[in-house]
Amino acid sequence: MSRKSLEDLLQSADGPVELLRNAQIGPYAFPGVPEFTNWRDEQRAWRETCVLFDQSYHMTDLYIEGPDVIRLLSDLGINSFEGFAPDKAKQFVACNHEGYVIGDAILFYLEENRVSLVGRPTAHNWVQYHAESGDYDVTVERDERYAVNPARRRKLYRYQVQGPNATELLEKLNGGPLPEIPFFNMGEITIAGRKVRALGHGMAGQPGLEIFGPWEERDEVRSAIVEAGRDYGLRQVGSRTYATNTLESGWIPSPCPAVYTGEKMKPYREWLPADGYEGMASLGGSFYSEDITDYYFTPYDLGYGRFVRFDHDFVGREALEEMSGNPGRKKVTLVWNGEDVTRVFATLFREEGDPAKYIDLPLSNYATLPYDAVLKNGSVIGVSTYTGYSYNERAMLSLAVVDAEHSEPGTEVALLWGEEPNTTKPTVERHVQTELRATVAPAPISEFARTAYRTRTI
Amino acid sequence: MSRKSLEDLLQSADGPVELLRNAQIGPYAFPGVPEFTNWRDEQRAWRETCVLFDQSYHMTDLYIEGPDVIRLLSDLGINSFEGFAPDKAKQFVACNHEGYVIGDAILFYLEENRVSLVGRPTAHNWVQYHAESGDYDVTVERDERYAVNPARRRKLYRYQVQGPNATELLEKLNGGPLPEIPFFNMGEITIAGRKVRALGHGMAGQPGLEIFGPWEERDEVRSAIVEAGRDYGLRQVGSRTYATNTLESGWIPSPCPAVYTGEKMKPYREWLPADGYEGMASLGGSFYSEDITDYYFTPYDLGYGRFVRFDHDFVGREALEEMSGNPGRKKVTLVWNGEDVTRVFATLFREEGDPAKYIDLPLSNYATLPYDAVLKNGSVIGVSTYTGYSYNERAMLSLAVVDAEHSEPGTEVALLWGEEPNTTKPTVERHVQTELRATVAPAPISEFARTAYRTRTI
Repeated sequence: MSRKSLEDLLQSADGPVELLRNAQIGPYAFPGVPEFTNWRDEQRAWRETCVLFDQSYHMTDLYIEGPDVIRLLSDLGINSFEGFAPDKAKQFVACNHEGYVIGDAILFYLEENRVSLVGRPTAHNWVQYHAESGDYDVTVERDERYAVNPARRRKLYRYQVQGPNATELLEKLNGGPLPEIPFFNMGEITIAGRKVRALGHGMAGQPGLEIFGPWEERDEVRSAIVEAGRDYGLRQVGSRTYATNTLESGWIPSPCPAVYTGEKMKPYREWLPADGYEGMASLGGSFYSEDITDYYFTPYDLGYGRFVRFDHDFVGREALEEMSGNPGRKKVTLVWNGEDVTRVFATLFREEGDPAKYIDLPLSNYATLPYDAVLKNGSVIGVSTYTGYSYNERAMLSLAVVDAEHSEPGTEVALLWGEEPNTTKPTVERHVQTELRATVAPAPISEFARTAYRTRTI
Repeated sequence: MSRKSLEDLLQSADGPVELLRNAQIGPYAFPGVPEFTNWRDEQRAWRETCVLFDQSYHMTDLYIEGPDVIRLLSDLGINSFEGFAPDKAKQFVACNHEGYVIGDAILFYLEENRVSLVGRPTAHNWVQYHAESGDYDVTVERDERYAVNPARRRKLYRYQVQGPNATELLEKLNGGPLPEIPFFNMGEITIAGRKVRALGHGMAGQPGLEIFGPWEERDEVRSAIVEAGRDYGLRQVGSRTYATNTLESGWIPSPCPAVYTGEKMKPYREWLPADGYEGMASLGGSFYSEDITDYYFTPYDLGYGRFVRFDHDFVGREALEEMSGNPGRKKVTLVWNGEDVTRVFATLFREEGDPAKYIDLPLSNYATLPYDAVLKNGSVIGVSTYTGYSYNERAMLSLAVVDAEHSEPGTEVALLWGEEPNTTKPTVERHVQTELRATVAPAPISEFARTAYRTRTI
C-alpha cells in the first residue's frame, strides 16, 4: 500500500512542531464571495439589523447511521447523552486519552439512529476511525467541505439568519409565527414554499436560526431571504467577514488537534492520511515550544467544562476527572491596544528595516492554527488564538487561553505578534516581531451572547 | 424593442454624476485566486525576482477582421497607424469629438486584416459601434471578461512573466535564447512543447513578456512556468495584488469614459446598453462636480500626448489640435504621507464617531472609477485616481492628474479621502472625510519603468 499516513509523515519529519509551523497551507479556507458590500457594514449588520451567513462551503459533514450511533458518540464525547433525542443538537467535544481536545463539532440528531457532525473535520476523523475500526453497528458517509471537494457539490445548503431583526424576518418568510425552537433544538419552518430545517443556534451570538435543506434548493431559499431581508436591513456576509463573528461570540475554531503524540494514538495516526487536515494544517504565531503537547487544550481551557459529564465512560475520562478540580487556564477575549495596532500599520511606511507581521483585516489569521504568546511581566501566561477586527467593538480582538490568575477582565497583558525566526509558511513575509498591549475581557465579549443567548427561545 | 439603452438610463436618472456615484457595482472585478502566498511577497517578487501574472480573466477581447480593419481604427484612434503591421501592437486610445478619452486598450495586430483589442471594454464598445454602424467591411467578435461571461470560457489564456529574472526563466522555458522581441512587438516562443505568442510588454514596468495561446493549453503552460520558476524565485500573483502593479508602472486603468454628454454622442449612447460597463460603472471618491465632463480626461492628461499624431483624420482631431499647445494638466504619482495613512487606520479604534473611509490594502479602490480631490492651499488642483499600497515603495501611492504648475516632483499637496456626503454605493460604509498629505512623484514612480523599459528589447 503506497498511501502515506500521518504517522509516516511524522516519522519523516523533524517533529510535529517543525512540520506544522512550516506547513505550506494557509489559514482555514472560507470559500465564497469575499465581500457582498463591505466588511464593516457586514459586521455591523449582525449587531444592528440582521445578516445572512452562508455556511454551505467551509465545514465537513459526517453522517453516521445505525443502531450504535449514540453508543459510539458516547464512548468518544465528553458530553452527556442523557436525554439526547431526535431534533436535538449539541456541541460535541472529543478528547484523547490524556484529556486533551481532539476536536469539536456540532452534532445534529437528525432522526432515530442517524446523526451528523458538522465543522472542521478533526472530531469527524476521530469518530469515523472508531466507527470503522471499533465494534459498532454503524455506517458513515462524508460530505467534504468545498476546499477538498472536487465535485463542488454538497448534500445540503446551510445558512444562518441572525441579528436583532432575524426573528421578524424569519416570521415574514415563514408566513406566520415561528415554532418554539429552544437553543440547540431543531424545528421546521417554510421558506419560499420549501420545508427548511432549523436549529436554534447562531455564530454571532445573536438571535436567529441556522437553517438547512437540500443543495438543489439553495438558490431559491437564499433569494427569498435576500428579497424579504430588504425590509429588515439584511446584509449578506461574505467569506472575508464571516469567520470574524466568532471573535464576538467567543468560540475558538482552531485548537491544535491532540493527535500527534502518544503510543495509544498511534493506530489512529496510521489510519489518518498524511494529506488530511491534521497533516496539512499550519501552525503559526509567536508562541513556540518544541513540545507539541504545549499546543494542546483541555476542555476546561476552551470553556467546555460545563460539557464534561462523568455520567458515562469515554476516552479521556480518567484524565479529565483528575483535572476537573483544577481548571488552571481560562478562555478570555483579548482587546488589543488600538495605538499599538496602529503602530504595526505604521511599520508599512518605514523606509528602513522590515515591517511587523502584516495584520490583515478583518480576519488576521495567517495559519490554520494561530498561536501567539500572551505575556505578563515578560513571562508567557497563555496563548492567543483566533484574531481579527470587530467593527462592532471598534477593536482588534483575539480569543485566548490564559492562566486563571490573569484571567480577570481588565487585566493588562502583552501579546507577541509575529514569528521569530520567521517560518517558511507562504503567508509569512519577512518581518520583525513586536509586542502589543492588550486587555483581558470576557469570552464572549458580546454582552448579548454572554447573558441572553443560551437561555433564549426564539 | 424592450432593450434599455444607456441613453434611456440617463434620461431616467438625475444626471450622470448622481447615477454613477450611486451605482451599485463595486471596483473593477479581478477574478481568480486572491493570494497565492501573501501580497507583500507577491509585490516584492516583480521588483526583486519574477512573477507570473494571470491576465486571462479581467479583460475583454474584441476581435476585428476584414479589409477595412486599419481604416476603422485609424478613423477612431489618436495613434498613428503608419508602419503598423502584423506582429506589432500599440496602446490604442480613442477620444470623443471634443478630444476627451473614451477609452484605451492594447491593440494586437494578429495577422493581415485581423486585430484584437484587449482591456476594459470602453474602447472596444466604441470601435464595435462604428464597425457595425459605419461603412466598414469588417466583422467583430467579442470574447467577454469573466465577470460578465456566463460560459466562463475564454478563447485565450494570457499571462505575463516579469521581473529581473524573467528573461532567464523564459529562456529556460524556451529551451534556448529568446527571439528579439522589441517593446510592443510580438514573436513566438515555446513553453512545454506548445507554441506561445509573446508580446514585449509588462504591467509592472519590468523586463518580461506577455504570452498568450489557446485556452485549452492554459494549465500546462502555467504549470511549466511555475515549475521552472522555482529556481528563479517566481511567485504567482493573486487577484488581490495583481492590479497594484500599475501603481508602480504609471498606467491609469480607470478614466471615466467620455460618453455621457454631447449631441454627437447620442446615437452611441442609444446603441450602448444600460447594463454595460458605461451604465453600471461606479464613480467614487471625494472629487465632486455636478458636471460629468469635469471627470473626463484628455490624452494629454493621461500622458498619451506622445501617441497623438495628426498624420490622419480621426474623431476628436480638431479638438486635440487646439489643445496640443497647452497641455494644462499632467499625470503624476502621489506618494501619500505614511503618518497620515496611519492616522486613517487609527480611526478604526476610536470609540466615538465614525471612522475615516477604510483603506483596503493593497488595492484601495472602492469604485470602478476612483476620483479623489487633490488640493493645494485648499483649492482643487487635480484628481487622484487608482490607489493602493506598494510594498516595493513602502508607500501608499495613487495615480493623479494635476495642474502642470503643481506637477513638479517634490511638490507637497493634500488629498481628500472619503465622500461627503457618503454615497449609497454598497462599498461605502458610514465615514468621515479626512485630508492627507501627499508628495508629487513622477509617473511611473519606478525608476526602471521610467527610464529603461520602453527602449529595451529582451
